Amino acid sequence: MSGRLNASFLGPAAENHPLLEQLVVEFLRDHSYWRRNFHPGDPPAISHRDQHDPEYIEFVSRMKDELMALSAELKKAVPFFSPRYVGHMSSDIMLPAFVAKILTTLYNPNNVSEDAAPTTLAKELEVGEQLARMFGMATDPDRTPCAWGHLTSGGTVANYEALWNFRALRFYPVALAQGARTLGLATPLIPRFGRRLDELSPWELLNLSIDETVEVRAACVQSWLAGRSRAEALEIARTINRERIETLGVAEFFARHRDLRPPVVLVPTSGHYSWEKAMKVLGLGTANLRKVGVDDDMRMDPARFEATLETAWSEERPILGAVGVLGTTEFGTVDPIHEMLATRERARKRGLDFSIHIDAAWGGYLTTIFRGADGSFREREEIAQDFERFPSPTVHAAFRALGEVDSITVDPHKLGYVPYAAGAFIARNQEVVNFITQRAAYVFDLGESDVESTTRDRLHNLGQYILEGSKPGSSAAAVHITHRMMPLDAAGFGTIIEETIHACEQLRQIVLLRRDELADLAVVRIPFQSDSNLICLAINPAGNRDLAVMNAFGRELFAEMKVDPDKPVQVKEFIGSYTSLVHGNMAPERAARLLGELGIDPATFVAAPEDPSREADHVFLLRHTLMNPWLAGRDGGRNYLRLYWDYLSDLIRRRLA
Amino acid sequence: MSGRLNASFLGPAAENHPLLEQLVVEFLRDHSYWRRNFHPGDPPAISHRDQHDPEYIEFVSRMKDELMALSAELKKAVPFFSPRYVGHMSSDIMLPAFVAKILTTLYNPNNVSEDAAPTTLAKELEVGEQLARMFGMATDPDRTPCAWGHLTSGGTVANYEALWNFRALRFYPVALAQGARTLGLATPLIPRFGRRLDELSPWELLNLSIDETVEVRAACVQSWLAGRSRAEALEIARTINRERIETLGVAEFFARHRDLRPPVVLVPTSGHYSWEKAMKVLGLGTANLRKVGVDDDMRMDPARFEATLETAWSEERPILGAVGVLGTTEFGTVDPIHEMLATRERARKRGLDFSIHIDAAWGGYLTTIFRGADGSFREREEIAQDFERFPSPTVHAAFRALGEVDSITVDPHKLGYVPYAAGAFIARNQEVVNFITQRAAYVFDLGESDVESTTRDRLHNLGQYILEGSKPGSSAAAVHITHRMMPLDAAGFGTIIEETIHACEQLRQIVLLRRDELADLAVVRIPFQSDSNLICLAINPAGNRDLAVMNAFGRELFAEMKVDPDKPVQVKEFIGSYTSLVHGNMAPERAARLLGELGIDPATFVAAPEDPSREADHVFLLRHTLMNPWLAGRDGGRNYLRLYWDYLSDLIRRRLA
Repeated sequence: MSGRLNASFLGPAAENHPLLEQLVVEFLRDHSYWRRNFHPGDPPAISHRDQHDPEYIEFVSRMKDELMALSAELKKAVPFFSPRYVGHMSSDIMLPAFVAKILTTLYNPNNVSEDAAPTTLAKELEVGEQLARMFGMATDPDRTPCAWGHLTSGGTVANYEALWNFRALRFYPVALAQGARTLGLATPLIPRFGRRLDELSPWELLNLSIDETVEVRAACVQSWLAGRSRAEALEIARTINRERIETLGVAEFFARHRDLRPPVVLVPTSGHYSWEKAMKVLGLGTANLRKVGVDDDMRMDPARFEATLETAWSEERPILGAVGVLGTTEFGTVDPIHEMLATRERARKRGLDFSIHIDAAWGGYLTTIFRGADGSFREREEIAQDFERFPSPTVHAAFRALGEVDSITVDPHKLGYVPYAAGAFIARNQEVVNFITQRAAYVFDLGESDVESTTRDRLHNLGQYILEGSKPGSSAAAVHITHRMMPLDAAGFGTIIEETIHACEQLRQIVLLRRDELADLAVVRIPFQSDSNLICLAINPAGNRDLAVMNAFGRELFAEMKVDPDKPVQVKEFIGSYTSLVHGNMAPERAARLLGELGIDPATFVAAPEDPSREADHVFLLRHTLMNPWLAGRDGGRNYLRLYWDYLSDLIRRRLA
Repeated sequence: MSGRLNASFLGPAAENHPLLEQLVVEFLRDHSYWRRNFHPGDPPAISHRDQHDPEYIEFVSRMKDELMALSAELKKAVPFFSPRYVGHMSSDIMLPAFVAKILTTLYNPNNVSEDAAPTTLAKELEVGEQLARMFGMATDPDRTPCAWGHLTSGGTVANYEALWNFRALRFYPVALAQGARTLGLATPLIPRFGRRLDELSPWELLNLSIDETVEVRAACVQSWLAGRSRAEALEIARTINRERIETLGVAEFFARHRDLRPPVVLVPTSGHYSWEKAMKVLGLGTANLRKVGVDDDMRMDPARFEATLETAWSEERPILGAVGVLGTTEFGTVDPIHEMLATRERARKRGLDFSIHIDAAWGGYLTTIFRGADGSFREREEIAQDFERFPSPTVHAAFRALGEVDSITVDPHKLGYVPYAAGAFIARNQEVVNFITQRAAYVFDLGESDVESTTRDRLHNLGQYILEGSKPGSSAAAVHITHRMMPLDAAGFGTIIEETIHACEQLRQIVLLRRDELADLAVVRIPFQSDSNLICLAINPAGNRDLAVMNAFGRELFAEMKVDPDKPVQVKEFIGSYTSLVHGNMAPERAARLLGELGIDPATFVAAPEDPSREADHVFLLRHTLMNPWLAGRDGGRNYLRLYWDYLSDLIRRRLA
């Protein structure tokens, strides 16, 4: 294992404890002496005598007891740090991130605005730019589009933010055209349509791209406000604003525009449940979440994607956004983002448009493998030299396409190995913030001399442009130092990610090579290709034909590898997780093939089981997310993947032999 | 100062550094040795030889340099810990909370579900119950309503959650009645209306309370599902669901119900800007945020509140929710929550209803002063003994009423002195979660034997019932230990809060007693009563009649007390903040009186200034949030409040003499 990696984590046996302790103590002291040097002449608020007060001593004693109790209780925790943990998307956290988190928490910065976070707010915006560049987006503030990004409490909130931005932009042209009519102002030409904004049909107004919407707004600001007083400019801004969906609300907007139909959002059937929440929270409605079927390897099917779009268009339903997933939560699979973009290119030529958001909460940091230290996108052949199968051509093409999408969710607190809470939202065009600011006066800000500032400057009032308010500067510091220590490219952070994919490929090899040892007891299948570092196993007792029986057997196996709060965690050899292939979320012919390989009667896989002793509406799978860098035991360490197979085989044998 | 308080913080001069270091080192070691004892037989992943590898040494050296650089940069921070910081709602954090945060972060629990957080998820729900009880809500799981609560990333997200819950409940009866008609099922009696659900008019269906909605749903579940198969139960659930606003989306729901008008939300003009964001994000529209005027002391005016409601009702606009603020961000004032409840009682008798949410992000922890250790609500006279003026009768009545509201936002990371990110959302009736769950199958869960579980049990899958997903268990541990050390009553946490109100009362006294010293130079006014621990000052150079001039003078003063990233923070004597009384957010007669006292010509306070050298659309105020417990220098310490007045007087003298 590389020296860098060895120094990046505390280690499965806390091998780096002396280093951690040294760093933490150093920075606790550094902070404390800073306090003492703010106004050294101020007398101590807590004297040494005070520290001998019985009440002080009693309180400290109780604090120690309480912390001891917490420490003891925490030992019921899941040992995420261990290479024996092969379950959910959780792991040890990186050492520099942890120390930065502690150190920064002492200063208590609040990244809601620069006033409350002179150091960490700039770091947060810098982290946003780093992630944007990793994805292939441009971050030159002198050019358009220029990307921006910020941290969120997690991927779910970043997903909400994407749809919030998309709605604000998608419906803006309707308001702008309406406002222009009211005010009797001329509107600019929209090149793709070859007509002026106010000559477009309502349907066409709902099919402008984000960049077109940004441009048409900027053109209107420039031509309408030139030479006008501040009061006149504000009145124009207010007239436009009054027509916006953000002002009117969804109900009144559609009541005024009876010719328009409510928008839909597309997401693959493998998408995260937060998309359902998003549809409810934003008032869009879960019925307008159109699920796109997946292919044989659980990736969004491009043909089904196109068909879903065509259906929506044939109903004149505007498409608020299409979501692709880069590393699904359940299967780790990667959607064909390049195909989504190609579809959009064709659609745009027909006067249609939709925004694209990528939910890369899990897979975002996989991009580091694809990025050269010079910022170039690495060729598949070059990357493939380091792996057995990774990356498949479609996965490679998907990552290459990331720079063209409109926004991306990525969670540093998942595959970025930093402490919770640290999600991130990245947008390709920072001008979107001008459509969601809370400051009415800024809506047509270029008309106001006293607030003339660049978009980038204004972002230092971060709370005005994002969903959340107060937020920890310590998260920004933790992510920032991680990216400093491990730049977001193949030679940097990619070296950690590489280990996780190696582990996944190696476990696959082990399963394929050794499953025959169990042939008379059970059938073991890997139900679909692994696009990243997550692998699922389906296991059926030999001769069994009923899905319900297979699922029950899987649950018995899983019961052995889950943490039981009533037992010491030490009794567990390995800890795993599970998932389900739900009926209807998988093409029937594909499901039939998988069940056939497993020896299951496909007739027992049904939408609504009537005989629960034989039938089931899902296929139970063991699910292993392989995040720990020490799994494969490179350079002479223990190979936990072989050990896991031995353990699993033994479990199966004991139950079936 | 009490021994407990002295042991609760690191201290302005890091007086408790030895204690902090001892605790942190202890628990770092405790964690590290836990790791080593999970499977002690596993060989170390990082050997001692590995730690002498040149790459390892190089990486560690660089890590130290990077952390040193971060530590150095952080020293540009605002010294929130100091009693010389009298600005925003930021302060030092409590020592046990900080140590618990560090300790728990090492275990990396994710409170999205109990699987990923066996210890801290239970603590989060316990914290929710503690806060609910502090507010006077019942938390007995065997009785209805039983409150629940959880942490959020901050108050803004908790505010969104309130409106999300309110919408899900407000429109449910319409869907339920529609579903019953479709299915031909009998509906239960609604006692307040004396008629059955399906006999209510659409307007009446929009005026059921949260408790009534919970009850009618439960009654339908019970009577409709009795004796039905799982498939039949699911079909009933799906039929209801299809009619819900959460499923249809706002646009389609109102398109189907042309007789219904979109809902409004009421919030005082002093409310936080996150309410505007909430209206946009939820698709409700900022035009439907009806601002209620305030009284002379910046509290929501009950008469205006009632008038705003009546206007909405006269337009047949359903009221999604009314928001009261317990501790406004800008002024620290407390709305008359008891009057809101009384108004609702009267409305209910007329067949009307609205849900009430309290934004107590700032003031929530003030409630500790009102709560006796036995859980009783303390009488005003008893509390008043400890203070000069606090609490006013209206403030006391407002806090007494908290137990009756529907939900409350409270931020432990503000007046709870715990690290970011820790907001909280508290709801009086936990059954609301059954209206927002992501699991379709649970909608009529009582009909399904395999998921028969109590609401309380189901909350252990927390991510299904809240806005966010992955979330730090470390925040739950930090809040939990704080509440253990300092119970949420007057004798516990209240002792810290007491100091902050004392400081505020004392600064007021100092200003009133000593402002005449400056009489020939400037007029100093406290523009409204302080309801908590925040005080504002208006300062006008003697003889000046123009508001713009006064504001410019205030800004000059403030420029001296703000952190300048280009200068060492040590040059600052005190650090403050400012706010503005915006034209239109204050009753004209009240504004005229204040300006009269200051000697300002009221004609220079205008909505749209034409002569910016004389006129202004706001009144600039110095704003001091007094969170630091050592401000008043009790028990012989330095009195920073007198020192601040000396400093401020000196600033004024130097500029004007």
